[in-house]
Amino acid sequence: MVKIYVAVQGATGYAGGELIRLIEDHPCFAIRHLAAHSQAGKKVSGVLPGISGPTSAMTLAASDAPLPDDVQLVFTALPHGAAAQSVKAALDKGKRVVDLSADFRHRNIATYKAAYGLDHPHPELLKDAVFGLTEFSRTDLPGTRLVANPGCYPTSTLLPLLPLLQAGVLDTGRIIVDSKSGASGAGRGTKTDLLYCEINESVQAYGLPRHRHTWEIEEWAEGFSGEAVSVQFVPHILPMTRGMLTTLHLFGQRPEGWHTILERTFIHEPFVRVLPEGSLPSTKAVNGSNRCDIGLMATGKNTAVVISCLDNLLKGAAGQAVQNANIMFGLDESSGLSAQAIWP
Amino acid sequence: MVKIYVAVQGATGYAGGELIRLIEDHPCFAIRHLAAHSQAGKKVSGVLPGISGPTSAMTLAASDAPLPDDVQLVFTALPHGAAAQSVKAALDKGKRVVDLSADFRHRNIATYKAAYGLDHPHPELLKDAVFGLTEFSRTDLPGTRLVANPGCYPTSTLLPLLPLLQAGVLDTGRIIVDSKSGASGAGRGTKTDLLYCEINESVQAYGLPRHRHTWEIEEWAEGFSGEAVSVQFVPHILPMTRGMLTTLHLFGQRPEGWHTILERTFIHEPFVRVLPEGSLPSTKAVNGSNRCDIGLMATGKNTAVVISCLDNLLKGAAGQAVQNANIMFGLDESSGLSAQAIWP
Amino acid sequence: MVKIYVAVQGATGYAGGELIRLIEDHPCFAIRHLAAHSQAGKKVSGVLPGISGPTSAMTLAASDAPLPDDVQLVFTALPHGAAAQSVKAALDKGKRVVDLSADFRHRNIATYKAAYGLDHPHPELLKDAVFGLTEFSRTDLPGTRLVANPGCYPTSTLLPLLPLLQAGVLDTGRIIVDSKSGASGAGRGTKTDLLYCEINESVQAYGLPRHRHTWEIEEWAEGFSGEAVSVQFVPHILPMTRGMLTTLHLFGQRPEGWHTILERTFIHEPFVRVLPEGSLPSTKAVNGSNRCDIGLMATGKNTAVVISCLDNLLKGAAGQAVQNANIMFGLDESSGLSAQAIWP
Amino acid sequence: MVKIYVAVQGATGYAGGELIRLIEDHPCFAIRHLAAHSQAGKKVSGVLPGISGPTSAMTLAASDAPLPDDVQLVFTALPHGAAAQSVKAALDKGKRVVDLSADFRHRNIATYKAAYGLDHPHPELLKDAVFGLTEFSRTDLPGTRLVANPGCYPTSTLLPLLPLLQAGVLDTGRIIVDSKSGASGAGRGTKTDLLYCEINESVQAYGLPRHRHTWEIEEWAEGFSGEAVSVQFVPHILPMTRGMLTTLHLFGQRPEGWHTILERTFIHEPFVRVLPEGSLPSTKAVNGSNRCDIGLMATGKNTAVVISCLDNLLKGAAGQAVQNANIMFGLDESSGLSAQAIWP
Repeated sequence: MVKIYVAVQGATGYAGGELIRLIEDHPCFAIRHLAAHSQAGKKVSGVLPGISGPTSAMTLAASDAPLPDDVQLVFTALPHGAAAQSVKAALDKGKRVVDLSADFRHRNIATYKAAYGLDHPHPELLKDAVFGLTEFSRTDLPGTRLVANPGCYPTSTLLPLLPLLQAGVLDTGRIIVDSKSGASGAGRGTKTDLLYCEINESVQAYGLPRHRHTWEIEEWAEGFSGEAVSVQFVPHILPMTRGMLTTLHLFGQRPEGWHTILERTFIHEPFVRVLPEGSLPSTKAVNGSNRCDIGLMATGKNTAVVISCLDNLLKGAAGQAVQNANIMFGLDESSGLSAQAIWP
Repeated sequence: MVKIYVAVQGATGYAGGELIRLIEDHPCFAIRHLAAHSQAGKKVSGVLPGISGPTSAMTLAASDAPLPDDVQLVFTALPHGAAAQSVKAALDKGKRVVDLSADFRHRNIATYKAAYGLDHPHPELLKDAVFGLTEFSRTDLPGTRLVANPGCYPTSTLLPLLPLLQAGVLDTGRIIVDSKSGASGAGRGTKTDLLYCEINESVQAYGLPRHRHTWEIEEWAEGFSGEAVSVQFVPHILPMTRGMLTTLHLFGQRPEGWHTILERTFIHEPFVRVLPEGSLPSTKAVNGSNRCDIGLMATGKNTAVVISCLDNLLKGAAGQAVQNANIMFGLDESSGLSAQAIWP
Repeated sequence: MVKIYVAVQGATGYAGGELIRLIEDHPCFAIRHLAAHSQAGKKVSGVLPGISGPTSAMTLAASDAPLPDDVQLVFTALPHGAAAQSVKAALDKGKRVVDLSADFRHRNIATYKAAYGLDHPHPELLKDAVFGLTEFSRTDLPGTRLVANPGCYPTSTLLPLLPLLQAGVLDTGRIIVDSKSGASGAGRGTKTDLLYCEINESVQAYGLPRHRHTWEIEEWAEGFSGEAVSVQFVPHILPMTRGMLTTLHLFGQRPEGWHTILERTFIHEPFVRVLPEGSLPSTKAVNGSNRCDIGLMATGKNTAVVISCLDNLLKGAAGQAVQNANIMFGLDESSGLSAQAIWP
Repeated sequence: MVKIYVAVQGATGYAGGELIRLIEDHPCFAIRHLAAHSQAGKKVSGVLPGISGPTSAMTLAASDAPLPDDVQLVFTALPHGAAAQSVKAALDKGKRVVDLSADFRHRNIATYKAAYGLDHPHPELLKDAVFGLTEFSRTDLPGTRLVANPGCYPTSTLLPLLPLLQAGVLDTGRIIVDSKSGASGAGRGTKTDLLYCEINESVQAYGLPRHRHTWEIEEWAEGFSGEAVSVQFVPHILPMTRGMLTTLHLFGQRPEGWHTILERTFIHEPFVRVLPEGSLPSTKAVNGSNRCDIGLMATGKNTAVVISCLDNLLKGAAGQAVQNANIMFGLDESSGLSAQAIWP
């Protein structure tokens, strides 16, 4: 079978590494070009010890090195701002792009500026971008040349929230989102705060009063449901490498019926599992998979707790990116992805 | 100096072990009697490897073995139901008791039954019990013979919540309490769910729809403030041994003034530290200490996030028990306790 | 494509769970029957939360339930002693078996008795068993009906040791093997020693003076090399779920040439990677993969340190079992297995 | 009681932080001056969140800021090379110094150069330095003005090794030392290798072929026993913050008598515990304490495994430093130190 050649920009971060792994084991995609910023010129094996085989012997190109002609698909896993440049360059050469950064997630450049403090580098491309929350964007993906892959927190929040918003059962003025993330979500930067000894045996909140992903959650909650919402979002970093659990404290009407709403929405989804009512998900049950597990428990006449779990590097990043790319290229949506967790 | 002799009932659990450690290094208390249920007859060294010196060579008595006459103070760290029996026996022999179980935390036996599913074994003793949230119970402690030591979740919730309730600034109908606890809070029972491989690299909620501590939080929120409150409490278990972080999502009036309220309340407290506004606490900064750190961040015109951190086995259990006992016996409240964390 | 139907006996332990995951994602094998001992009658989803899809809804049969006729391959992941019974029953029904227990690893029943304290339940089957250290047993696997899958410690020890023994360069009288294993190697039994709070932030040796795997290492070191060896083997349990690192402290002649010996032996192996001289492996670089990484460093004129890393549940258990089964059934040896690690 | 004023140089590393904690809770020492290099000018609270009370509000002085006149004792917790400069300056002002760096641990500048690649900055001071392995240096400590505090690996190796060397029972030509350390031993530098996500769920060896501490172990093994020894030392970094376990694989005569040798040596020591024969230590049982636990198991006619455990930041660094300082100043050796572990 002829493979589709792929490039990864920002190959040496944690999401970049997962992209390489997924492509290595993918039946239709093949690595053709790997680029990195500070690590350019090094061999993959010196930076990503988990990768073996011929790819591990490849040399990392510079971020701005020209893309090979036979590359059809580019994944950009770069910081916001920098990503937009690479996306532009790739689109200009006729490639299709899945961008894992925040650069094309907002339809409005004022929102982008509020969240990221930057003037958008390429606002002219925004109209082409599909926000790739796969389960809600599926029909827009096949034709697009640019997918804005959602953030991990927005994915974990929107998947359980959207069906309830679309059903009109929520009190949209007080949506409390309390998220817990493994440390890999904070990236591979060499910061004191991310040292093993500072993270281990500790938990803390961060990003307050308004974490950047709050804008993304609010924009797409409304974008997909038509309902304006106000979200209080508090993320926490936990002593684990992977995994994200989001606890939604929700108010609304007749929560005893919400479980059915969730179940109906996701019943045929390969990568979203709604647990039986009263059953609560754990991150361990999704780590290493592209799955999002959702549990719901009514806690009062007008209140419920809804909890989602996913692997922040997979369904929250590289896995969803491959899922989106599969659809873009007309492949089986599950190609190269597993719904089974590496457990324990 | 003449030491005050102490017994610990339930010496081989995690809180029991911490009690022994604290008493070993305490200037005025001394271990005289250690009892356990399933481990009775064994040496301390075989069950609690962290204890060294003469105490480690002691043999564990049975739970119902008679208390030595010279014991003045008994700590009971037993399961609810069983604790009440031991408390009764100790009081009958004229001892003073700090009970770490839930048995004497509720003033109303109907609440106790709702939360624990038991008819209270000794309701006649309830009138004697002081709920030992030290910072709010200080004046009642010196004269009492029975302290009901608060639960870890209630301690971590009530310390930051009570000053705001007392100030009357909160919307008391929608108090969201999202707690994250290290695994030692779940005890030392040999359950599959508590195995290393099941807890590590995982997070999950539990105890829904209404964890037992919800009743304790609501009862004492009202008990200390006079305000009836409704709490949605969702606890999570995290891959760490110790530490508890409680995130309160609060609604109310003028949250920009709440930091001052907290600061004023606790300014002279040896074991409560209110961080500068905008600074967020971490559990690592309190582990191994008897301290509770509190941070606050206004997130909107009517909303704020308040976060507390404590070591669930110290300020959340054995540390607060010793703090209470210090006051009962007229000692310096800080005797044998440290405000410094074992960090990192 | 017609699938080969598979049964897993002992499906609810950690190795059993990995077997199910691997088979779920395998192109040629399919789960047909899952049996367990204490969990029989439960649904898979209640015991193995990481498994999703139709298999998660299967009910666990009892260990002694009859195997379906269309099952061709049985994996037994049961305790020693019990495994032999299930193996016998499966062979009697004409199935082919990969046994992950120790029951068929020893050619000599006296050795088995010394190591496991049992009279061998079915010594008549020993002559049929192939010791499935894939890289050294490859030619014997296609025709066999019974594979004794090696232990995790023996796999991690023998892979780096055998090439050096076969080359005759080692002082065979003083081979020091110091192994470090993640906690999943100790199984899923509900023992106090395996609780999260006892394992986390701790390391200790166990199994001294002579861990059971010492016999297996010595027997097969000689079995594959013809050289009798004396091994001092000290295993340690570490605060991590998966991963095994084995440090061999070796004495012998001209260690500067040993790296070449290792490299030549494994150069075409899909699942053994010899790192460049001076490069040291880490368990993180192999976790989630079926790979064994080996590093070597000469430390003196007659001494070297050789270090191997593997995932104890994969190349050390379920992964190697599938690798062996692939060869038994004439499939591509790598089917359903990955050489890429889940990293970080 | 009049306190002895203390300065800490290098206050913001992990050992520096532990020194501050220990001094804060010490009955006779008091913090007077805290200096740091890159963090100078910051408040303690911004860098060491575990410290509370007045000390947390102190501003960190620059490393070369003059020491206050009333400071009598200086702890230097600086990198090698830099430490010697600070030690010289402190001694010149008449202070007494406990140096936690390697700068004064070697009596021979050629050894120092071989191990650290530096010409010794102040060789004239070497004659004044006492190597502070407390249990073997006790008589030299009261009169000295400079203590070279041992490294963590040498402490954990020499404590169990020296009694056996002194007894003359070991084969000194093949001493295998396989050490496992928590990540805090690698310091607080912002290196990719020390990030949470790289250390967690991983173990690896490092520092080969000859880690710097090998020279220190060999020098003082001979220094205290008179026997020249050859050590193969292999350190590993583990996914835990604290704790060091050293496994010694030893050859020699009549290992059945070695336990008695260890027991007799340490029977009156407050901070060394020899476990009953056959009992194996764990790091969790010493973490947070200044204790070293030692276990021994004969494994053959001429072989034994001896295992020591200590907290690398306490008995392996700051704890032993305070123990030495206590003796220097004529205080109770145990002042401000605990033999009880923070367990679990």
